[in-house]
Amino acid sequence: MRARHKPWADDYLSSHPEYVILNPLEKKGKWQQVFGNNQPIHVEIGAGKGRFVMGMAKQHPEINFIAIELAKSIIVSAVEKAVEEEPKNVKLINFDANDLRDLFADNEINRIYLNFSDPWPKNRHEKRRLTYHTFLAQYQQVLASDGKIIFKTDNRGLFEYSLMSFSHFDMLIDHVSLNLHEDEDPLNVMTEYEEKFSKRGHPIYRAEVCFRKR
Amino acid sequence: MRARHKPWADDYLSSHPEYVILNPLEKKGKWQQVFGNNQPIHVEIGAGKGRFVMGMAKQHPEINFIAIELAKSIIVSAVEKAVEEEPKNVKLINFDANDLRDLFADNEINRIYLNFSDPWPKNRHEKRRLTYHTFLAQYQQVLASDGKIIFKTDNRGLFEYSLMSFSHFDMLIDHVSLNLHEDEDPLNVMTEYEEKFSKRGHPIYRAEVCFRKR
Repeated sequence: MRARHKPWADDYLSSHPEYVILNPLEKKGKWQQVFGNNQPIHVEIGAGKGRFVMGMAKQHPEINFIAIELAKSIIVSAVEKAVEEEPKNVKLINFDANDLRDLFADNEINRIYLNFSDPWPKNRHEKRRLTYHTFLAQYQQVLASDGKIIFKTDNRGLFEYSLMSFSHFDMLIDHVSLNLHEDEDPLNVMTEYEEKFSKRGHPIYRAEVCFRKR
Repeated sequence: MRARHKPWADDYLSSHPEYVILNPLEKKGKWQQVFGNNQPIHVEIGAGKGRFVMGMAKQHPEINFIAIELAKSIIVSAVEKAVEEEPKNVKLINFDANDLRDLFADNEINRIYLNFSDPWPKNRHEKRRLTYHTFLAQYQQVLASDGKIIFKTDNRGLFEYSLMSFSHFDMLIDHVSLNLHEDEDPLNVMTEYEEKFSKRGHPIYRAEVCFRKR
């Protein structure tokens, strides 16, 4: 997602330490202390303007949410939402989630949401897709043994690739929808992107996957 | 698929023993003798009017094809095609493929095509779906260790169910297409049903799956 450069973004993020974790690497292994309770931790990768995480946090006060977004000029919108809604169970990180093991200790988190990740359609960019096996290995390490990954995308190629990648990594595909919005799940929380593309008639694909216990 | 009752069907099938195997249970373990060579054997379940198997047989003279269809009034059309085209590598069976282990010995076949199987959408009919785990266990027994299943359907619910069923049965999902005709595979042979429904704009789903070697 592209957005205008916002020169004031740095200052704005720094001025909201109650939502924005400025030194996230130092919190590795200590995220429950950050939230001040022992609720399960769900992580969204690619949080955009924060619509999904704010909706989920409201629906699930019993869960702590950490939303990661690389683009500074976009995450500011998520911070604005947090400042307005004042959720107690949301922390935001402006960070390149290239290796979740830098941020989280083994088994520290309980769920990962991959929302509308960059499809990287060219074969030579396969390694950058967030469902490439090197990423799955990271997720396996930081997720608790009963943890799961919930993946949504409107990109057919990425979803096909990801189903194969999950299966080759010996993961269990626990649930699949090939047209989420036709299923009319009242608990589905949409991302900004999801609303835009589903309105255009694109099917939204969704999978719940976990690691097999051997 | 429904078709008019054809009172002459019995006689017609009996009069073409070069294509129609009338006593298929007796051939269990002896299918290579039936074909008179040791080519791999691919089996289509739900062959309809035979368009798919005839197309595949022409494209792959190095493979022996066995096409199974329950409806007598429909399989006659497949026999008519065979009589016209005279393939050397096609046998047809008018049979209820409820247990493939009645027809085939362990490891006797190399591939199973499930084409546009009845979706049995009601939960209470789950056991009848040809990708229910009891069927997968049969397929595992009759397929050679490097055998695979190729599954096509236009039914979203059945395809979603089947992906989950394959995964829960610990099968490997080796390839998936969520819109086969958009992929424009020049080697795809269409069934009658497939042509009809893809012309109406329905996406055709396809998966290649196999059993993991442990």
